[in-house]
Amino acid sequence: MRKAISLGIAALLLIISSGTLSAQNEKTSTDALSVIHNRKSVRHFTGKSVSRDDLITIVKAGMAAPTAVNMQPWSFVIVTDRPSLDILAQALPYAKMLDKAGAAIIVCAIAEKAFQGKAEIAIIDSSCASENILLAVESLGLGAVWTGVYPDKERMDAVRKEFNIPEGVIPLNVIPIGYPTNEDKPKDKFKQENIHWEKW
Amino acid sequence: MRKAISLGIAALLLIISSGTLSAQNEKTSTDALSVIHNRKSVRHFTGKSVSRDDLITIVKAGMAAPTAVNMQPWSFVIVTDRPSLDILAQALPYAKMLDKAGAAIIVCAIAEKAFQGKAEIAIIDSSCASENILLAVESLGLGAVWTGVYPDKERMDAVRKEFNIPEGVIPLNVIPIGYPTNEDKPKDKFKQENIHWEKW
Repeated sequence: MRKAISLGIAALLLIISSGTLSAQNEKTSTDALSVIHNRKSVRHFTGKSVSRDDLITIVKAGMAAPTAVNMQPWSFVIVTDRPSLDILAQALPYAKMLDKAGAAIIVCAIAEKAFQGKAEIAIIDSSCASENILLAVESLGLGAVWTGVYPDKERMDAVRKEFNIPEGVIPLNVIPIGYPTNEDKPKDKFKQENIHWEKW
Repeated sequence: MRKAISLGIAALLLIISSGTLSAQNEKTSTDALSVIHNRKSVRHFTGKSVSRDDLITIVKAGMAAPTAVNMQPWSFVIVTDRPSLDILAQALPYAKMLDKAGAAIIVCAIAEKAFQGKAEIAIIDSSCASENILLAVESLGLGAVWTGVYPDKERMDAVRKEFNIPEGVIPLNVIPIGYPTNEDKPKDKFKQENIHWEKW
């Protein structure tokens, strides 16, 4: 009987500790607030390719972003071809890390599909989609970085030309995605002075 | 001895089931991908106020967003005063739900702080911060909705005037935050035709 009781207690302790462990694990991995704070601009990749399933999961997260009057004024070009990634690395001054990325997503904003046909709104909506993409990447244990294309005309033209993107469509960014070497770390950007209570 | 064994098996089953339960719980609550997909535009609030701690957690998530060359060209006005919320509800055509919201955050984009002093970049960076805010709200079990201010000049002027926001600063949106009545549901916005593989 004493054995049974001590076994019961041991089991209870195990249950409690396994709960604590899973809670900790949740916090450091896929909990939304942790992912938001752990997201970092990853510029160093191992060279390993990214699975098609992961890329679809990532783009799906992008499409879950809010858009003005639910117009979804966007499209996503997913690039995995090595020659295309290398051409992008050549064409964009801050996208050299594409040489070791497994893929890239080009988030495209479509003014004519946006609320009131406004480019400003297409860009805002597509920025939210891009942020969701960056967070989804982090939550999968992958890394990514926003490399700017819009509003630089030269870069927009280069990306449009290479990927047959129509003239009216705005390539907002190129997001290289890959397995991080873990050299890149998140920054703490909290600043009390950027909060105004009640009035500016 | 048989008792001890069966107790051991029962304990093992309990551990396994508690692990499964916590994994399920994680998925439906604070797991990043779930939060991204569960986020919805909440336009119906109970009227309950939102704690200062939650508001700070939410704004901290906003400040964790990426910005071009880490310029953080933003500020956040947190409004909890009932008269101010009512004035906003009057001034903005799509912000009537503020009457039952517990608070609102005005995300402000600051062109002169942005990379190359560009308003376009301040707006992109502040849009990413806004998306983080919406996700943090969802992860806390609260609700929110992006109500547009920029690029509508009349609305920007009204918000600037009421909250002493300087002329050069762009009030991007007003985000009412509160306890949801749970009438609002997320939309599935995944569209295969918005994905282009390798080329447009």
